[in-house]
Amino acid sequence: MRVLIPGIDGYIGWSLALNQLSKGNQVCGFDNFSRRKNVEEMDSHSGIPIISMNERIIRLTKDYGDKIRFVEGDLLDAGFTDTIIKDFQPDVVVHLAEQPSAPYSMIDQKHNVYTQQNNVIGNLNLLHTIQRHSPNAHLIKLGTMGEYGYDPGLEIPEGFYEIEFRGKKAKVPYPRLAGSWYHWTKVHDSNNIMFACKLWGLKSTDIMQGIVYGTKTDDMKDEQHNTRFDFDEAFGTVINRFCAQAVIGHPLTVHGIGGQTRGFLALNDSIQCISLLIENPPNDGEYRVVNQFDQQFSIMELAKMVQSVGNKIGLNVEIQNKENPRKEAEEHYYKADHEILRNLGFQRIREIEDEIEIMLKHLIKYKNRIEDKKHVIVKDIKWK
Amino acid sequence: MRVLIPGIDGYIGWSLALNQLSKGNQVCGFDNFSRRKNVEEMDSHSGIPIISMNERIIRLTKDYGDKIRFVEGDLLDAGFTDTIIKDFQPDVVVHLAEQPSAPYSMIDQKHNVYTQQNNVIGNLNLLHTIQRHSPNAHLIKLGTMGEYGYDPGLEIPEGFYEIEFRGKKAKVPYPRLAGSWYHWTKVHDSNNIMFACKLWGLKSTDIMQGIVYGTKTDDMKDEQHNTRFDFDEAFGTVINRFCAQAVIGHPLTVHGIGGQTRGFLALNDSIQCISLLIENPPNDGEYRVVNQFDQQFSIMELAKMVQSVGNKIGLNVEIQNKENPRKEAEEHYYKADHEILRNLGFQRIREIEDEIEIMLKHLIKYKNRIEDKKHVIVKDIKWK
Repeated sequence: MRVLIPGIDGYIGWSLALNQLSKGNQVCGFDNFSRRKNVEEMDSHSGIPIISMNERIIRLTKDYGDKIRFVEGDLLDAGFTDTIIKDFQPDVVVHLAEQPSAPYSMIDQKHNVYTQQNNVIGNLNLLHTIQRHSPNAHLIKLGTMGEYGYDPGLEIPEGFYEIEFRGKKAKVPYPRLAGSWYHWTKVHDSNNIMFACKLWGLKSTDIMQGIVYGTKTDDMKDEQHNTRFDFDEAFGTVINRFCAQAVIGHPLTVHGIGGQTRGFLALNDSIQCISLLIENPPNDGEYRVVNQFDQQFSIMELAKMVQSVGNKIGLNVEIQNKENPRKEAEEHYYKADHEILRNLGFQRIREIEDEIEIMLKHLIKYKNRIEDKKHVIVKDIKWK
Repeated sequence: MRVLIPGIDGYIGWSLALNQLSKGNQVCGFDNFSRRKNVEEMDSHSGIPIISMNERIIRLTKDYGDKIRFVEGDLLDAGFTDTIIKDFQPDVVVHLAEQPSAPYSMIDQKHNVYTQQNNVIGNLNLLHTIQRHSPNAHLIKLGTMGEYGYDPGLEIPEGFYEIEFRGKKAKVPYPRLAGSWYHWTKVHDSNNIMFACKLWGLKSTDIMQGIVYGTKTDDMKDEQHNTRFDFDEAFGTVINRFCAQAVIGHPLTVHGIGGQTRGFLALNDSIQCISLLIENPPNDGEYRVVNQFDQQFSIMELAKMVQSVGNKIGLNVEIQNKENPRKEAEEHYYKADHEILRNLGFQRIREIEDEIEIMLKHLIKYKNRIEDKKHVIVKDIKWK
């Protein structure tokens, strides 16, 4: 199988490349290194050290020979995107090349416009190019559970639901009520992809992913295989940031009362899920939406879990409630389906407490790197 | 009242400026002249001659003194947008500065990317700038009934509907299932506006407008007041194109069997509706969706109507079914609400047959201009 990974230098992109190579697939990746640059803009760096892309490719070539190929480039460059897809002829494209941070998109007009332009136009270029050169390729797109939002208090199905209105029944898209500019770009993308499938008969899986945490996957054999680990307020996800705080003795900062409930997934399981989706494509012309998360927790539950695992391994972890910089409900109903991936065989690799323990022990080795940048963990980017 | 009109040089923009000036309001408009350029790109021109923007402003200054102000500029230029809103301090912004053609957006990747970038980013710049400098201004945004699409066969409410799902009830956005890249940009805009209202407390009316037809409004006193009239396949709307065909003796070209049903509205009534919305803003923080059309017709019904009015005034009008270049259902259920504007006092100014007669007689004067460009009426821009 020929797997194209736009965004191969990112947290999930790199982990997925290792996974697909270990399965014997041919992998081609590209990246414009925006993640490294944008994290630098936040005055941060990866908590776990990662080697340069050049070094990464040298290492993977040693491991997998010519199964790996990398090209520096940008989805927004239509000519570049055209050339790479025409040349590589992918069976599957796993699109991980978007600006992935909600707080980053909320900084100001410039960051919002950058996010919407980068994500929406990049995704459009990809759709047109697949249609032109690889119309049978399976496009796997990384969206987010945050596309649904948390507002209406309904159960959340996988993308579509059947409703009745004034005596007529129909299966229609479930409402999207995203809570940040970034999350809305994912909705715009979903809409554009759904239309491309209908218009051109492309096949796509649109992943509504929960929040991913962890530093390791089963495919990482040594420190050269490390994927990046962000802990700054913009690019660090909540469990990862709690763990970073725990290892440097900073109280875990919970936004408001911490009743915000979300779906979560270990990095190892995220890669497992994407791999299952690669092996099980939808039909031609099908636009398939999957909710990709393992378990739901509230933010306070997670903080307590990190505290308890941290204390067990000798850290002294405190929890601090602080004013919420975001505009969001701090307590709400939340119940989301996630059956499609289970039906494809998804089973969690290990329990969340064990993942947290692995992560904390891994991070302790690099405590100084987090300590050096501890001012970026809480920057209070205001939502308003 | 201080009325800002981005896109003042367009079909509706110019007509609205005349209307608002005649009501004694202060009008400031801006435009990047993309409509004139894009119609030229289609090798066409306005069927009814229009004067340059400079001449238009000289004329309006003669009529209304310093009540009118115009600046050339582009919403995509964040600095320009910032300056004009900061300076003018509008009470209401009627955003008509988007690329408005579905076929144009379907030409190829370049035209799609241009349309999405122009519309989505321009609208975002406007939202941020209003929030910064005029947070109490009422943003009236031109969307389209096409945002809902024609697929699920449900009645179409105004923006939101109440549904029940697994035992819980909620009022949620009605599904958007647009049928062209252009129409999707309007959905992306609607989503961004809805979020801006929630995030920042802006107030906005998002107009889901039907298809507009006609050459005249009651505010146009002579030919210098003419608004543009497009009849090429990209920028001409269906009734207008039928009338252009009728005056040059070309058969009215109906896509497929012509069972496509849409909501329609005379230009005169579109202006009446926008004027009502200006006078009746929503509450602070409210995102109000209105369906703005007068009557529903199928394309074949319209063709027959233009034929009958045309024959009455001495034209010899034929109808020709041709292969549909679009991907769309040619027969479908269609029933849309449009109560909000009626409740605000909207009443049609005259019957559609009378509007068509006025339009045909107006166009006959400029028959040569249409004859000269008759190759642009049917260009067969393919949807696929």
